[in-house]
Amino acid sequence: MTMGEERYRLLMACPDERGLIHRVSGVLAQAGANIVAFDQHSEGLGGHFFMRSEFDARTGTDARIRKDMESLSRNVPMQWRLTKAHQRQRLAVLVSRESHCLQELAWQTGRGDIDADIAVVISNHAEIGELAQSYSLPFYYVPVAKGQKSESERQILDIVANYQIDTIVLARYMQILSADFVSRFPSRIINIHHSFLPAFVGANPYLQAYRRGVKLIGGTAHYVTEELDQGPIIEQDVHRVDHRHQLADYKRIGRHVERMVLARAVNWHVSDRVLPFENRTIVFPI
Amino acid sequence: MTMGEERYRLLMACPDERGLIHRVSGVLAQAGANIVAFDQHSEGLGGHFFMRSEFDARTGTDARIRKDMESLSRNVPMQWRLTKAHQRQRLAVLVSRESHCLQELAWQTGRGDIDADIAVVISNHAEIGELAQSYSLPFYYVPVAKGQKSESERQILDIVANYQIDTIVLARYMQILSADFVSRFPSRIINIHHSFLPAFVGANPYLQAYRRGVKLIGGTAHYVTEELDQGPIIEQDVHRVDHRHQLADYKRIGRHVERMVLARAVNWHVSDRVLPFENRTIVFPI
Amino acid sequence: MTMGEERYRLLMACPDERGLIHRVSGVLAQAGANIVAFDQHSEGLGGHFFMRSEFDARTGTDARIRKDMESLSRNVPMQWRLTKAHQRQRLAVLVSRESHCLQELAWQTGRGDIDADIAVVISNHAEIGELAQSYSLPFYYVPVAKGQKSESERQILDIVANYQIDTIVLARYMQILSADFVSRFPSRIINIHHSFLPAFVGANPYLQAYRRGVKLIGGTAHYVTEELDQGPIIEQDVHRVDHRHQLADYKRIGRHVERMVLARAVNWHVSDRVLPFENRTIVFPI
Amino acid sequence: MTMGEERYRLLMACPDERGLIHRVSGVLAQAGANIVAFDQHSEGLGGHFFMRSEFDARTGTDARIRKDMESLSRNVPMQWRLTKAHQRQRLAVLVSRESHCLQELAWQTGRGDIDADIAVVISNHAEIGELAQSYSLPFYYVPVAKGQKSESERQILDIVANYQIDTIVLARYMQILSADFVSRFPSRIINIHHSFLPAFVGANPYLQAYRRGVKLIGGTAHYVTEELDQGPIIEQDVHRVDHRHQLADYKRIGRHVERMVLARAVNWHVSDRVLPFENRTIVFPI
Repeated sequence: MTMGEERYRLLMACPDERGLIHRVSGVLAQAGANIVAFDQHSEGLGGHFFMRSEFDARTGTDARIRKDMESLSRNVPMQWRLTKAHQRQRLAVLVSRESHCLQELAWQTGRGDIDADIAVVISNHAEIGELAQSYSLPFYYVPVAKGQKSESERQILDIVANYQIDTIVLARYMQILSADFVSRFPSRIINIHHSFLPAFVGANPYLQAYRRGVKLIGGTAHYVTEELDQGPIIEQDVHRVDHRHQLADYKRIGRHVERMVLARAVNWHVSDRVLPFENRTIVFPI
Repeated sequence: MTMGEERYRLLMACPDERGLIHRVSGVLAQAGANIVAFDQHSEGLGGHFFMRSEFDARTGTDARIRKDMESLSRNVPMQWRLTKAHQRQRLAVLVSRESHCLQELAWQTGRGDIDADIAVVISNHAEIGELAQSYSLPFYYVPVAKGQKSESERQILDIVANYQIDTIVLARYMQILSADFVSRFPSRIINIHHSFLPAFVGANPYLQAYRRGVKLIGGTAHYVTEELDQGPIIEQDVHRVDHRHQLADYKRIGRHVERMVLARAVNWHVSDRVLPFENRTIVFPI
Repeated sequence: MTMGEERYRLLMACPDERGLIHRVSGVLAQAGANIVAFDQHSEGLGGHFFMRSEFDARTGTDARIRKDMESLSRNVPMQWRLTKAHQRQRLAVLVSRESHCLQELAWQTGRGDIDADIAVVISNHAEIGELAQSYSLPFYYVPVAKGQKSESERQILDIVANYQIDTIVLARYMQILSADFVSRFPSRIINIHHSFLPAFVGANPYLQAYRRGVKLIGGTAHYVTEELDQGPIIEQDVHRVDHRHQLADYKRIGRHVERMVLARAVNWHVSDRVLPFENRTIVFPI
Repeated sequence: MTMGEERYRLLMACPDERGLIHRVSGVLAQAGANIVAFDQHSEGLGGHFFMRSEFDARTGTDARIRKDMESLSRNVPMQWRLTKAHQRQRLAVLVSRESHCLQELAWQTGRGDIDADIAVVISNHAEIGELAQSYSLPFYYVPVAKGQKSESERQILDIVANYQIDTIVLARYMQILSADFVSRFPSRIINIHHSFLPAFVGANPYLQAYRRGVKLIGGTAHYVTEELDQGPIIEQDVHRVDHRHQLADYKRIGRHVERMVLARAVNWHVSDRVLPFENRTIVFPI
């Protein structure tokens, strides 16, 4: 990057048509941008077009680019978004008893492997506070009493608003969020499910996997939608098990799969590498 | 192996109790056997015990071992089996239109990577005959006309009997076998299902996987039981896919996963490395 | 693709500078092209820029694109190449005793998984002829007598010329080609080495791996350069081994790794997805 | 485990001969042991025999087993070892600037995923002290001044003696230990090397890997012997990279491979699952 420049990211999704790359790269060329990454996916004419570009341009050029993109979008029904790479996303991490995913996220955000900040940790288990404290992270204990879920969710909403949260990460948060809550954060809540979805939806996936006698266990990071465990999948991975592994081993091995899968998904999400489309995701990973 | 010796395999499953390894290894020691492989799995007292041993012993010693195992099994309610390693299993391979799994099995049995012989190929598609012929394998065209399934199954049963088949391999055979047929071959029919079971049971698993937007596609080799795609899993594997892959790519990539998974499962089965138990398998792989 | 259109591929490599994507996509927009794939890699200003685009355009438009690319390259010192996707590359497959890689290539080209044709098979082992014949592939037996290597290479050159070969694949060909031979086919000879390079360069890599006690064995497909096993790597993969595996098992397992790695590398190469640069490769895989 | 019982582990290595399993399982049967795991590996007559058994027996029975094993070993030149499973090994973790491996070990020992205790952390970088403290681990800063290596090693030896250390883990410790130091701890020092050995021995393996253009990067955990990076390998793993990954990405991705590989190796080592033999290891993993 040259002095006086900033790094930007431009995301775009629209019906595919001829000349799109030329037109959008024209906007960037006019702004004197230097493109450092340019990924696109096209379903072909009649389908959709998706693009992510990362580029360096003089500070302030974003105003011009915004204007030009607005012009462009007058003719093509497109969704687009321009972000500044140095503006790190602010995460709220929700966690229940199992702390390994929080730990991994604290660690990777702390050392810069994930380019985001954990702004606040929220748990329905008070003892998580100690771990949050050891990483100097603000912590809120929000218990979920029977029949008081909406009250708990209201508290969480307040915290999320106060801390100006960009993305909510359910890092083994074992409460099911209401449809109302979820609908406020489209493609902004990421969950880790401890199975290879769509196998073993719902409760106790490791026990389900053990009973079915599978030879690989997995983890799935996905955007949360109103239907449980049905949202667009961002990342999945698996690990081999065999007859010697008991349920406790499934959980031990699975913990490592879960935290790696979730960390990758969050990393891609906060660097604008994930474009949800219908119930799938386009991911331009690094 | 010394001159005048043969290689044997002894399989055993029974409720676990103290001293089992000592007693069964005593049977082998008495017979002057040299154990070259000894695998066991114990669930602990109150659970089950599984064992596989491969050993060299003088030809004819098997009579003595059988007698001693019978004595042993008078006190412990066990299942056991003694086989001769050089007696290669005889396979019937059933296949529909997709020939890649047949091809892999023909190849690996042909070059000795799988220690078994394809004794006969059966298909409901006549054009498979040409491929069978290119490997000099006996071929039977058994069409499955609407409402004539039981007639077709009768023909298959005759062929299987005539060719003295040990194991039936469904190598992308797209017909559902009747419960009556299946019940005649307990743990002797192996199927390859083109998904990571239990995800995407039934028809068109790749299309199901594509629609769900999974990031890994898989294949599952399992014993066939009366319930579709519910039998004990022998082996599974997966391969990564992303948004660039269309349904045709899923099928192309999946073909390679399927044939590798099926070949491994058949290889372990014919070398007595798979012990089904309830709806799971104990596999001692190589 | 619309009636009257063809699919083309445009490859490009040059020093990175601002506006490149806009200019090259301009050439395509002017030609009325519909871009179906667009991959680029930039090292940033001061580094290099690499691009691959696949697009549909009216038959004959290629003349115009060529002219425009020539204009473009007058200002930027670039290498570029325009190919027609339907013109399948013609392969010469060289093989010694081990036939599994030839078999895999014959199979995958035959069923269209690799978009190329094996035009001729050449071996220093006469018995490979039978396998070539079973796939109806022209076969030449070119023995390599001691001290007669240059004569053998001359024969191979003649065959390669006669069959208008695009790419030579060394599918477990155990002869070392002379520097003179290699220099005639820059980035047009692909070799499979049966180890995870740069570990175990040279002869008997599985024996070397066995002796070192590694826990993973691998295969490496690379372009052949004048230095043995030192050319740009296209693809690598590994498989787990443990203490139970003897040298014969390494070879058995390795065969499956080798043929998959080589098949992927050839597939990417013939669809113009591999751009060698210095001693590395940029690969835009599918 | 029944009341009044303890879990033991018996390890054994000797030249293979007939009847070994029967004799050693006889020792256990006489002691009234209940075998819960029994793994063996035989190279066949003329080769070696390796065994690991885990069993429950009445507290105090170990005296009898020791006596019987001594008798047994009078006739067969064997090495054997009996350990109590509940006696957790005490680890000294040596680390330089990069703390991720220490962090993973602290975490996994802390939550019981690795059945051992970090008794002390030693570093030639003072700032590691803070991390050690956050896990309440004793910490020693032992700088290595130029020409003062032997003095530093003397300090480390003192600490290791004082803390009654069973195993030394080099968790990205960038100092080369002297042959004299190493020879005091045969098969008791584990190192993580940040490459897929034997590729990229020595300094800067990620830079070496980057320059060679490999498609997979790896990590290797091995016992330390007097020759640098040449000791018996315990565990290895790899992760895919491509042209988009810069050296910093290699390091970021590699960190995750390294800590997982090292954690698995330490886990197997402390649960007596690794038997080094010549320059290889027999590993009975879980």
